[in-house]
Amino acid sequence: MLIVDGMPDRPIGGRTPLSVAKKPNLDKIAEMGINGIMDTISPGIRPGSDTSHLALLGFDPYKFYMGRGPIEAAGVGIDLKPGDIAFRANFATVVGSGSVFDKVVVDRRAGRIEQTEELINALNEIDLPVKFEVAKATGHRAVVVFRGNSSAELTETDPKVVGEKVKKCKPLADSAKEIAEIINEFTQKAHEVLEKHSLNLEREKRGLPKANAILLRGAGVMKEIPSFRDRFGLNLAVVSATALIKGVGRIVGGDAFTPQGATGNKRTNLEAKLGNSLDLLKKYDVVLLHIKAPDEIGHDRDFEGKVEFIERLDSHLGRILDLDFSKNCVIVTSDHSTPVSVGEHTADPVVVSILHEGVRVDDVKRFTEFDAPKGGLCRIKGMDLLNIALDLLNLSKKFGA
Amino acid sequence: MLIVDGMPDRPIGGRTPLSVAKKPNLDKIAEMGINGIMDTISPGIRPGSDTSHLALLGFDPYKFYMGRGPIEAAGVGIDLKPGDIAFRANFATVVGSGSVFDKVVVDRRAGRIEQTEELINALNEIDLPVKFEVAKATGHRAVVVFRGNSSAELTETDPKVVGEKVKKCKPLADSAKEIAEIINEFTQKAHEVLEKHSLNLEREKRGLPKANAILLRGAGVMKEIPSFRDRFGLNLAVVSATALIKGVGRIVGGDAFTPQGATGNKRTNLEAKLGNSLDLLKKYDVVLLHIKAPDEIGHDRDFEGKVEFIERLDSHLGRILDLDFSKNCVIVTSDHSTPVSVGEHTADPVVVSILHEGVRVDDVKRFTEFDAPKGGLCRIKGMDLLNIALDLLNLSKKFGA
Repeated sequence: MLIVDGMPDRPIGGRTPLSVAKKPNLDKIAEMGINGIMDTISPGIRPGSDTSHLALLGFDPYKFYMGRGPIEAAGVGIDLKPGDIAFRANFATVVGSGSVFDKVVVDRRAGRIEQTEELINALNEIDLPVKFEVAKATGHRAVVVFRGNSSAELTETDPKVVGEKVKKCKPLADSAKEIAEIINEFTQKAHEVLEKHSLNLEREKRGLPKANAILLRGAGVMKEIPSFRDRFGLNLAVVSATALIKGVGRIVGGDAFTPQGATGNKRTNLEAKLGNSLDLLKKYDVVLLHIKAPDEIGHDRDFEGKVEFIERLDSHLGRILDLDFSKNCVIVTSDHSTPVSVGEHTADPVVVSILHEGVRVDDVKRFTEFDAPKGGLCRIKGMDLLNIALDLLNLSKKFGA
Repeated sequence: MLIVDGMPDRPIGGRTPLSVAKKPNLDKIAEMGINGIMDTISPGIRPGSDTSHLALLGFDPYKFYMGRGPIEAAGVGIDLKPGDIAFRANFATVVGSGSVFDKVVVDRRAGRIEQTEELINALNEIDLPVKFEVAKATGHRAVVVFRGNSSAELTETDPKVVGEKVKKCKPLADSAKEIAEIINEFTQKAHEVLEKHSLNLEREKRGLPKANAILLRGAGVMKEIPSFRDRFGLNLAVVSATALIKGVGRIVGGDAFTPQGATGNKRTNLEAKLGNSLDLLKKYDVVLLHIKAPDEIGHDRDFEGKVEFIERLDSHLGRILDLDFSKNCVIVTSDHSTPVSVGEHTADPVVVSILHEGVRVDDVKRFTEFDAPKGGLCRIKGMDLLNIALDLLNLSKKFGA
């Protein structure tokens, strides 16, 4: 499954990046395969990349989505159990006197600090009434997981803007009272540990902002979720540079890989990502290769940039066409549209092509938003995609007699 | 949303009214927009106009439909609370001796009486153990609402044919025992009040049938239903001459309008309805304009009549094309098909065109049952229509991250 994040678009003057890009391999895939449009969640519902990837892996996001915190936590490698509560976190700089909640946030990214490993080690030594774990994410970011059966009906400690005080975590339900107190205790103790940490004292000497507070947001409780293997009898690998997508893969029990040079932006090493994915096909039944850049470029509203990236991506896709389609099934699609005219995810359906010896090849010869609806798949839903592929591969069981 | 009731058809000799009518504006809408076919409820399910309008407004009719009584009651302006039980009612003529239930219905429409206002005022003075309200509907019709938490598991008092006695209302569940007795008490007291009413004594003198009974049918209990505003954050206006459609709009918290000269039949004032709808767009986020006639003509099995009405309707639609489609989204569709070959609502999917700057314009150039399936929307469901429009207008929220 090649999932090109945010690639489809809304037309501007009748043109989309996909319709103007020179992309002989994507067009060849459309020509050799069966094509259609797909609502990854449901028509008119704007998908997040996390909810849509859950759906594309066959998991109903309305049933299994648990918020961003747990998925990011899984993405950076924390093994979550049902009932664990997870937050996204930032190292930040606070000033003032009194407790951490009397202090004002002056930099939500602590000078975009990168080397946070030692700080995280120190935070993990804090004594709390519950088990917890802090783990590094990209840059100044981290995740914090509190173990046990907690409620995520909590307010955030991150004020989200500079110039405001660190917020106290407040319970929004009686069941969250205890964990709210523990989170406030953690926030205070974290500040004390960080404030006097040698790395911060050194930063102070060098005139850098101290990473002396940790701010929490995006709470979610890990749910009971069946594994991909239990559900489909197959093992799963996800190749991505994006923690959120790796997290979706891990949450459903898959393995996640980030090859050397994969960055999640438009300078990513496509050769390595594609090579890694094709290698993994030898060990894994299902390999999901996630390419992030077109989404980022869509958010930047850069039409030409999207065209250029699609053309560069296309130049690497010839290798897909060399696969043996009597044994392999290749899906090329996206998790959602990110139109350059909008700069956000939209619910415009994505383009989908399925390549396999057994597909009913249609007349579609170009991989575009305008050609796909004329294809043999018509309009499908994200939740059905994997089932369609497993059926083509004769890996499906009959329902009934 | 322009909803042309019952417009699509089944072909007779390969032709449908839409395929032979000269309708340059509808065809221009198809050409400028994205097209498809739509199952307003679900494939193969024959929609009522009430259930399909609920779906087109984003409310699952399987969850929220409460029967015709409450919707008609809302349509004539009664403000319903959850638990209220509503009936459609007819003024009728009964003869004989004894109680009303011993008397025989000789005219189910009381000589098609029109001026029922005074009779209704008198009925509203009746003393009953529960609060109730009688309101005028068109002609000899009315609605009756009994307030409070009642069960609608009741038989009807309307025998539906002349020559039979007025029926006693019987409970079909224990929970309906009390209300059944009250309804019988109401039916008897109504007869006593009407029998001696001056208006009826006068009718008797003039040789007209007395409107001396009120017959109840179509019981339904008002349900808890979220408002359109709560659901979508938008306000809604419905423009229709049909109480049932106005009722659907009001049941979901919208405002309903019937412009001067709007009749619900083929002589309706289309200029006024369209003008009123375009004006309302200044004050309302969503305006649903309902045109009833093609359904009526379909029930009459009049092919040429349907062609003529479509052509007349089309001559008024040029004004829609003058809207600014960077800011507005126009949907042209129907609530169901009413084929002239059947004379009833059928589940044949309806034609749908969506006009907005951001749509992926397809190759469809004619607004017909034969061209629509080739369009870029493929086949959608009524429940998804509004979500698709809100996404195009960037009024949607993202699900996930």
